[in-house]
Amino acid sequence: MKKINVFEKLSLFRDYWDPKIVGELNEQYVKLAKFKGEFVWHTHENEDEMFFVLNGELIMEFRDHKTKLQENEFIVVPRGTEHRPVAKKEVAVMLIEPKSTINTGDKEGNMTLNNLDII
Amino acid sequence: MKKINVFEKLSLFRDYWDPKIVGELNEQYVKLAKFKGEFVWHTHENEDEMFFVLNGELIMEFRDHKTKLQENEFIVVPRGTEHRPVAKKEVAVMLIEPKSTINTGDKEGNMTLNNLDII
Repeated sequence: MKKINVFEKLSLFRDYWDPKIVGELNEQYVKLAKFKGEFVWHTHENEDEMFFVLNGELIMEFRDHKTKLQENEFIVVPRGTEHRPVAKKEVAVMLIEPKSTINTGDKEGNMTLNNLDII
Repeated sequence: MKKINVFEKLSLFRDYWDPKIVGELNEQYVKLAKFKGEFVWHTHENEDEMFFVLNGELIMEFRDHKTKLQENEFIVVPRGTEHRPVAKKEVAVMLIEPKSTINTGDKEGNMTLNNLDII
């Protein structure tokens, strides 16, 4: 039950597309991540996913539109919704999602992570 | 599935201790609130509660210690843990907690809210 400063935690890592666990509540993890470039299109069948932008710009692509998010903006991607996060420059994001969530959802591949670090 | 700018939403209300619903995921609500003064001591028996400070300073009091949180810091208060939020000056907070959460937990009284606005 200690407080977490998100920018202190973000200073501890530099790797992209590798969310770190910084907290948990109600069977969900709070994660911090840095994104740059294009992720893979994927869907989480049973998990809603919240992306809160801490700095930079995140583009959340859907099959029929895209949403640009700046600092202090968030979006919830509902379960079952195909999406792809894209960042032209580095963006720092806080994620909240069920513990069961796999980063690449239904698209297992070389971006899939089976274990996340707790920092 | 639209994005939410937390500071735009915060500009829409001024009342203290009256969280507004701005999103939901996985049977939880994302809420925004402004606090000033001392809340009531209370416990949520079945709900973990996340407080993310957007601006100002939040003091989370527990029976044996207190934690001061600044902007970009968060704390998760685990279920079953008696706590009291205190703010000497206005603080803006993002809350994430199960839909079932009552603001005053086990201490129903004149601060208890039965319906929250969606903004």
